[in-house]
Amino acid sequence: MGNTFGHLFRITTFGESHGGGVGVTIDGCPPQLEISEEEIQVDLDRRRPGQSKITTPRRETDTCEIISGVFEGKTLGTPISILVRNKDARSQDYNEMAVKYRPSHADATYDAKYGFRNWQGGGRSSARETIGRVAAGAIAKKILKQVAGVEIIGYVKRIKDLEAVVDPETVTLEQVESNIVRCPDTDCAEKMIDLIDEIRKEKDSLGGVVECVARSVPRGLGDPVFDKLEAELAKGVMSLPASKGFEIGSGFAGTTMTGSEHNDEFYLDEQGETRTRTNRSGGVQGGISNGENIVIRVAFKPTATVGKEQRTVTKDGEETILAAKGRHDPCVLSRAVPMVEAMVALVLCDRLLCQYGQCKVLSV
Amino acid sequence: MGNTFGHLFRITTFGESHGGGVGVTIDGCPPQLEISEEEIQVDLDRRRPGQSKITTPRRETDTCEIISGVFEGKTLGTPISILVRNKDARSQDYNEMAVKYRPSHADATYDAKYGFRNWQGGGRSSARETIGRVAAGAIAKKILKQVAGVEIIGYVKRIKDLEAVVDPETVTLEQVESNIVRCPDTDCAEKMIDLIDEIRKEKDSLGGVVECVARSVPRGLGDPVFDKLEAELAKGVMSLPASKGFEIGSGFAGTTMTGSEHNDEFYLDEQGETRTRTNRSGGVQGGISNGENIVIRVAFKPTATVGKEQRTVTKDGEETILAAKGRHDPCVLSRAVPMVEAMVALVLCDRLLCQYGQCKVLSV
Amino acid sequence: MGNTFGHLFRITTFGESHGGGVGVTIDGCPPQLEISEEEIQVDLDRRRPGQSKITTPRRETDTCEIISGVFEGKTLGTPISILVRNKDARSQDYNEMAVKYRPSHADATYDAKYGFRNWQGGGRSSARETIGRVAAGAIAKKILKQVAGVEIIGYVKRIKDLEAVVDPETVTLEQVESNIVRCPDTDCAEKMIDLIDEIRKEKDSLGGVVECVARSVPRGLGDPVFDKLEAELAKGVMSLPASKGFEIGSGFAGTTMTGSEHNDEFYLDEQGETRTRTNRSGGVQGGISNGENIVIRVAFKPTATVGKEQRTVTKDGEETILAAKGRHDPCVLSRAVPMVEAMVALVLCDRLLCQYGQCKVLSV
Amino acid sequence: MGNTFGHLFRITTFGESHGGGVGVTIDGCPPQLEISEEEIQVDLDRRRPGQSKITTPRRETDTCEIISGVFEGKTLGTPISILVRNKDARSQDYNEMAVKYRPSHADATYDAKYGFRNWQGGGRSSARETIGRVAAGAIAKKILKQVAGVEIIGYVKRIKDLEAVVDPETVTLEQVESNIVRCPDTDCAEKMIDLIDEIRKEKDSLGGVVECVARSVPRGLGDPVFDKLEAELAKGVMSLPASKGFEIGSGFAGTTMTGSEHNDEFYLDEQGETRTRTNRSGGVQGGISNGENIVIRVAFKPTATVGKEQRTVTKDGEETILAAKGRHDPCVLSRAVPMVEAMVALVLCDRLLCQYGQCKVLSV
Repeated sequence: MGNTFGHLFRITTFGESHGGGVGVTIDGCPPQLEISEEEIQVDLDRRRPGQSKITTPRRETDTCEIISGVFEGKTLGTPISILVRNKDARSQDYNEMAVKYRPSHADATYDAKYGFRNWQGGGRSSARETIGRVAAGAIAKKILKQVAGVEIIGYVKRIKDLEAVVDPETVTLEQVESNIVRCPDTDCAEKMIDLIDEIRKEKDSLGGVVECVARSVPRGLGDPVFDKLEAELAKGVMSLPASKGFEIGSGFAGTTMTGSEHNDEFYLDEQGETRTRTNRSGGVQGGISNGENIVIRVAFKPTATVGKEQRTVTKDGEETILAAKGRHDPCVLSRAVPMVEAMVALVLCDRLLCQYGQCKVLSV
Repeated sequence: MGNTFGHLFRITTFGESHGGGVGVTIDGCPPQLEISEEEIQVDLDRRRPGQSKITTPRRETDTCEIISGVFEGKTLGTPISILVRNKDARSQDYNEMAVKYRPSHADATYDAKYGFRNWQGGGRSSARETIGRVAAGAIAKKILKQVAGVEIIGYVKRIKDLEAVVDPETVTLEQVESNIVRCPDTDCAEKMIDLIDEIRKEKDSLGGVVECVARSVPRGLGDPVFDKLEAELAKGVMSLPASKGFEIGSGFAGTTMTGSEHNDEFYLDEQGETRTRTNRSGGVQGGISNGENIVIRVAFKPTATVGKEQRTVTKDGEETILAAKGRHDPCVLSRAVPMVEAMVALVLCDRLLCQYGQCKVLSV
Repeated sequence: MGNTFGHLFRITTFGESHGGGVGVTIDGCPPQLEISEEEIQVDLDRRRPGQSKITTPRRETDTCEIISGVFEGKTLGTPISILVRNKDARSQDYNEMAVKYRPSHADATYDAKYGFRNWQGGGRSSARETIGRVAAGAIAKKILKQVAGVEIIGYVKRIKDLEAVVDPETVTLEQVESNIVRCPDTDCAEKMIDLIDEIRKEKDSLGGVVECVARSVPRGLGDPVFDKLEAELAKGVMSLPASKGFEIGSGFAGTTMTGSEHNDEFYLDEQGETRTRTNRSGGVQGGISNGENIVIRVAFKPTATVGKEQRTVTKDGEETILAAKGRHDPCVLSRAVPMVEAMVALVLCDRLLCQYGQCKVLSV
Repeated sequence: MGNTFGHLFRITTFGESHGGGVGVTIDGCPPQLEISEEEIQVDLDRRRPGQSKITTPRRETDTCEIISGVFEGKTLGTPISILVRNKDARSQDYNEMAVKYRPSHADATYDAKYGFRNWQGGGRSSARETIGRVAAGAIAKKILKQVAGVEIIGYVKRIKDLEAVVDPETVTLEQVESNIVRCPDTDCAEKMIDLIDEIRKEKDSLGGVVECVARSVPRGLGDPVFDKLEAELAKGVMSLPASKGFEIGSGFAGTTMTGSEHNDEFYLDEQGETRTRTNRSGGVQGGISNGENIVIRVAFKPTATVGKEQRTVTKDGEETILAAKGRHDPCVLSRAVPMVEAMVALVLCDRLLCQYGQCKVLSV
């Protein structure tokens, strides 16, 4: 289990880094949505390896094939299955890691859990698994856009201690995509790129923070009590490889304020809509969207696989030294941006459908 | 939907703050576990209002009744339903809040979602809902203890900017329970209590951070890819009222390190077990427990309901002023401790059962 | 697990025959539905023991209490929890059955599964569990009625070999309730009552068939491929105690026809609606409702607990003789009618909500 | 939704009759099970079209590819995705059916539900979807065999009114596979084959009954109350195309007996095991397996698509005549045998894993 996400808009991903391929089956997609492989490919291209000098040089076009669920350019309402073949796999790079556990990677825990693992390219624990999420997320984004004009934009907020200044109210996809690190603060972006380039040469790696905003989200999404919107968002992004922390709105910083300082006072806007003057809530109150921008942040640790020598043990219980071979990202943040966006889109789309399912039936 | 948590060890909570009562039904509990209302009451008493001068003075004994699922002192394997009656409800305190939305509370969003809400005591959005979780968590804790000697200990790590020094390796329940704020750093605890008392008098509120450690967790718990242990833990605690952030292990701070600094190198301990020298992973690698201590932190915002005057709007669309009446916690942190522990226990117990379900069947 | 039914309109039942009580929690109920304990009680009264001379004399009023989820007479959208206390339990009647397994009852299998059971009154395997289903079904019926004018009417079609003549197109609830056996063919009903009375005196029991029709069901309910409407209906009613068979439309008899004989030809009715001339499909084609009447039949075996002497074994592995004491139904069919209706209502309501969730979001 | 089956051993199928292909993703499969494409192909070959003169002449080898989840010949514990490409699709045969609804087929209801459908080959409503089930069922069978020696054997019990004499205790797979209609009563089989051949020439179709036995099923499988073994089995087989009825054990016939006649008396066998003298329960009591043979029957209606002329309507609301073109099975029964076996295997395997998950954790 564990490979399915969502309740009504529900995805199941499959595949390992090396082998036949990776993909996703989407169940519950509304019918008659126009969708094409080209539209899905846009986000896959933002995720794929080899897209720039600061990502892994593994060469995959990650070209997707829609196997089912789309007919004459429109969704059928039946499962959409999308497949991406693995092409540029170099299993021999992993021969050493077949026996030596990479520190802070999933090698040892997969062996502990299953007694067995596909050591080629990290197998199922590879970030390559996220292809299915990003493909499904592209469809979720389109539904959200079509139904409510929702916009979901992620970006790199911080690399190590280089923190960007970005306004979630106004940031655009164009600004994000204007540079290879996906940081809309262009001055900061340059420094980030230099820093990543440097760490790559040192055979080391970096972490950081991705921030993501969802704008024009309808009020009322999110289900008390366990499926609160922030709980689902937290689960979604904390299931991404290398994530170590999650915040919504004021997050950890908000805990140093008093209630009267922290609360978002209500007012009526020109249309008579109930709005908040501030947005420390991050667009969610009581687990339900309040119509303000949803703003979250995700902490990604530095990539575990590094070329530097590290002490470790073998699966046969011997202490040893590992300097990892293979092609690895010195920093996953720029590629994590579409992954975070995808998870946010999947959560919001699922909760949108749930909202129709429970709360529209007596009123429509 | 949204009121069910867990896959095999699965709980469904019900109830509003005022009205018939609150409770939980636990499905999937292993049979023949010895359990009593008294054992469950221990954690409920740690959660209940009116337990000290720094909590809300609402007087509830929160006495639980096991309706079903236990026979002759042992679990039957059938659903365990536990009911706590609401006793000391003062609905009249909420008359004003029936029309005026409390800033940063769930009043407005419940109305947006359902078109209707129980305004008495916050209804379903009240922290009173967590009674069911804490009761179920007590049973989950016992299973984990019995099967693997797991210990789960939460404590207040920070209130506003008062940060405690606590070693998750060695902290004991006795230390946590030695003071009313549940902070095992006794010097810091005193300052915290004073600060809460002060803010209470100012009709304002405080937030902070709860840290929780789970020790002796078996290796192999957690299911790639969406049900990674950190993803389930994040969802669990982010579904608690007032939570705004989650971290595991190094969390956000870990993002400022390089990979070679951050990685937890492996070694063999005296028993020949694969262990890590450091624990920046927080006991989880690749979504699966690695046998080290699981350490998480949860950010709780300052209580939204404050006695100070705030600008807000009514449900009928008029701007107004609200100074909330009723009995509210100036700081939820001490009561949040058993809630966080419960969610951690529920996640671990569920994943323990899942691990037996999938991975033991061919080997037992 | 196993105590939850439904996807969006989802119920979880709890409770044993003797002990604190039985009940249900309903999650996902649409908000703002007017509902009262009195309305729910109507179906509970049709289900309760002691209602007539042909049912068990156990005296239970089965008075329900709504614990949560309803406020000012309307559903809140949050979980509705309903509790019925056990009153007239005579545990001493079961002393013998604590050690002697009743043939064809659940005693032996519960022990095999859980290693332990509540032998008082059959514990969780008692038909008393269905109180929760019937209570939830009453709410589901009301939603279906309100949204689409759906009518669900069950009745006793056959007892042993006494088969009634009933037209599912026109049968009314009044006809069903006009006699204690709930068979709208009054001549046949009299014979059935006599037969049951006779078998009761012989300390033996009878089985039969309940038929149920759902009229005015909207087109489009049911989800390919596993959640086909007939599959969900089959699961629902085959989870009722004592059920041994399920049919929809032509059922087993339809297998003796050829395709050209069996197919329901389409025509256009006066409103231009696509209709079928016959209804061998039973209102479902390809797993999806087609707007015709849904007609199903459920086989109930004769009650397993009989007063006659039978050979059996004890839980300690000794062969013995059992003549069951206690108060038992000589024939469950009349009480099974509201149970079957409830399961049909739960399935249809759940699929109605799912249909809104998936298929209305792009079009509303 | 609706394309996922199972709880712990959980499959999701995808694909339409014409288009990229069909397949399945299996989540929750125990790790380290030896499995190969060849083993899976055995059951796919029993299901595939064109296997004999009494099945549709569509020529598909239905060769399966394992995309993921298997490494070095063993399951990884991660999702197993299996793909079968569509090869011999003749979409032009369906041009007429793109506008004319086939009586008793899913054409009209898919349009009613989704407002749109893939009319080529029936799209998702095609029995081709069952490829994924049969592939997954082959793996489930192997697990059951390996853990408990379970044998699952289906066979054609009746075609129209030709009823075979078969003993579920002793029937072998070899007997079933000894003729093309999969009826182990060879005399009856010959008559069945002749009858099907005759009806094929008449451009008409036949229905019948498949019986299936599962032997050596461990005691204790099945979960009260909604996931009773017979309920899950009923759902599983009633989700197969063309199924109209389900029975377990004595089924509908058992309702004509009295309780004392019908009950399966217990005795102790030579090993001291609790056994039943008869098996009217069909191997399940109280929803839980009792160690006796599980015996079920499934009614399949005559194939809806026939070459004979039938009255129908078009999707644009005009009455018309249809004589269906394309290649169709005159009788699906022989191909339904591996489908029924697969669903039985999937249910039993899922419940086996659930049993380990809930009931072994405190005792292993």
